Amino acid sequence: MKNGSLYLIPVTLGETPIDKVLPIQNREIINSIKHFIVEDIRSARRFLKKSNPEIVIDDLTFYTLNEHTKGEDIGSYLNAIKEGADIGIISEAGCPAIADPGADVVAIAQSRGIRVVPLVGPSSILMSLMASGFNGQKFTFNGYLPIEPNERAKAIKLLEQRAYSEDTTQIFIEAPYRNLKLIADLTKNCRPQTKLCIASAITCDNEFIVTKPIKEWNKCLPEINKIPAIYLIYKG
Amino acid sequence: MKNGSLYLIPVTLGETPIDKVLPIQNREIINSIKHFIVEDIRSARRFLKKSNPEIVIDDLTFYTLNEHTKGEDIGSYLNAIKEGADIGIISEAGCPAIADPGADVVAIAQSRGIRVVPLVGPSSILMSLMASGFNGQKFTFNGYLPIEPNERAKAIKLLEQRAYSEDTTQIFIEAPYRNLKLIADLTKNCRPQTKLCIASAITCDNEFIVTKPIKEWNKCLPEINKIPAIYLIYKG
Repeated sequence: MKNGSLYLIPVTLGETPIDKVLPIQNREIINSIKHFIVEDIRSARRFLKKSNPEIVIDDLTFYTLNEHTKGEDIGSYLNAIKEGADIGIISEAGCPAIADPGADVVAIAQSRGIRVVPLVGPSSILMSLMASGFNGQKFTFNGYLPIEPNERAKAIKLLEQRAYSEDTTQIFIEAPYRNLKLIADLTKNCRPQTKLCIASAITCDNEFIVTKPIKEWNKCLPEINKIPAIYLIYKG
Repeated sequence: MKNGSLYLIPVTLGETPIDKVLPIQNREIINSIKHFIVEDIRSARRFLKKSNPEIVIDDLTFYTLNEHTKGEDIGSYLNAIKEGADIGIISEAGCPAIADPGADVVAIAQSRGIRVVPLVGPSSILMSLMASGFNGQKFTFNGYLPIEPNERAKAIKLLEQRAYSEDTTQIFIEAPYRNLKLIADLTKNCRPQTKLCIASAITCDNEFIVTKPIKEWNKCLPEINKIPAIYLIYKG
């Protein structure tokens, strides 16, 4: 029997209408899938209902994937593919396997020779980079910076140094309640002329994507306390 | 008068139906814009016609943006925004300002306090990363590798070393006619267990996104000679 495929299904970033950020064809693919590997079953159900109000949730099988999921379970999640069924991975926000556990499933699928199909959707990393005005030919996404003050200062200085010496855009994220602390740490550790782009609520009504030199940010701190944000720095 | 906004308008990767890779709402935004900064006027016109067959091309103003465009001209392209008009940037493939000259326009827009709005679309960098099974929490896009043999070998070894020591996915591209040469250079310079993902024709009918250890690739070279491809390496 022909193997099924593993589809990577992006979701909206925040409360955006689906048609604003997802191609219409994603919906047709979603409607043809009965097995979903998801970070959170409740929010995955909500997304599937929003994507197709007629969907019968009880006909679907969900497998939970989070930091507690064991490797052997992840492997078994893909068994339905051997029986010819397609499987979809749905993460909490944006694109699966980018900054979330989906990558482990994909790695196993690739090692088994399973066809993996990524669908188009919103990515805060890519969209903030597009709108930052920074170098899109060379860039690094670093995830979260260290918390420990000395390591954190060292990490910020290394990213800034690479932004200058390797002409790269350096991208990173922070826990929402630490946004203002991060901006303070960047102001303290970066050169005043280094450019910082702060992006939040991407694709939402209150979207904010603004680039300024570090020295100008503390004059006009954005209202992003406790709002998910992404940060980009580049040579000034 | 209220300023216009600068929209970053992704296009398809190759001959894919628009509804497969672009949200329906991009079309509405495109239809409201009369000024476009484009890499190539002919292909931009073709995309706009495909996106909206009713569009009247003669009502639109196009500004060409390529490596020959002077900085002062780029700045003047944005003047219509002061008169309240929106402007769209359209690149040759995928997302503007990611691996193309659009970033210069965006940088000027940001420095003038112009609102920059990125739209969702296909990115070979992001989609290949999603489907590779590699680390999506930390990754670097490196653009093209050097051509000069010694620099090239050094660059490949540095990327591989960072893939292991910094746990990052290293992504790069190559001119299509050099694909097979690049795979040979990777085989020669990387550890046999290092994983290589080769992705080509992303979102097209002949989409190919496959991950294998370096040592297994030369047993089964893909037919990607002269086909646009993107490469990812990660620790084995």
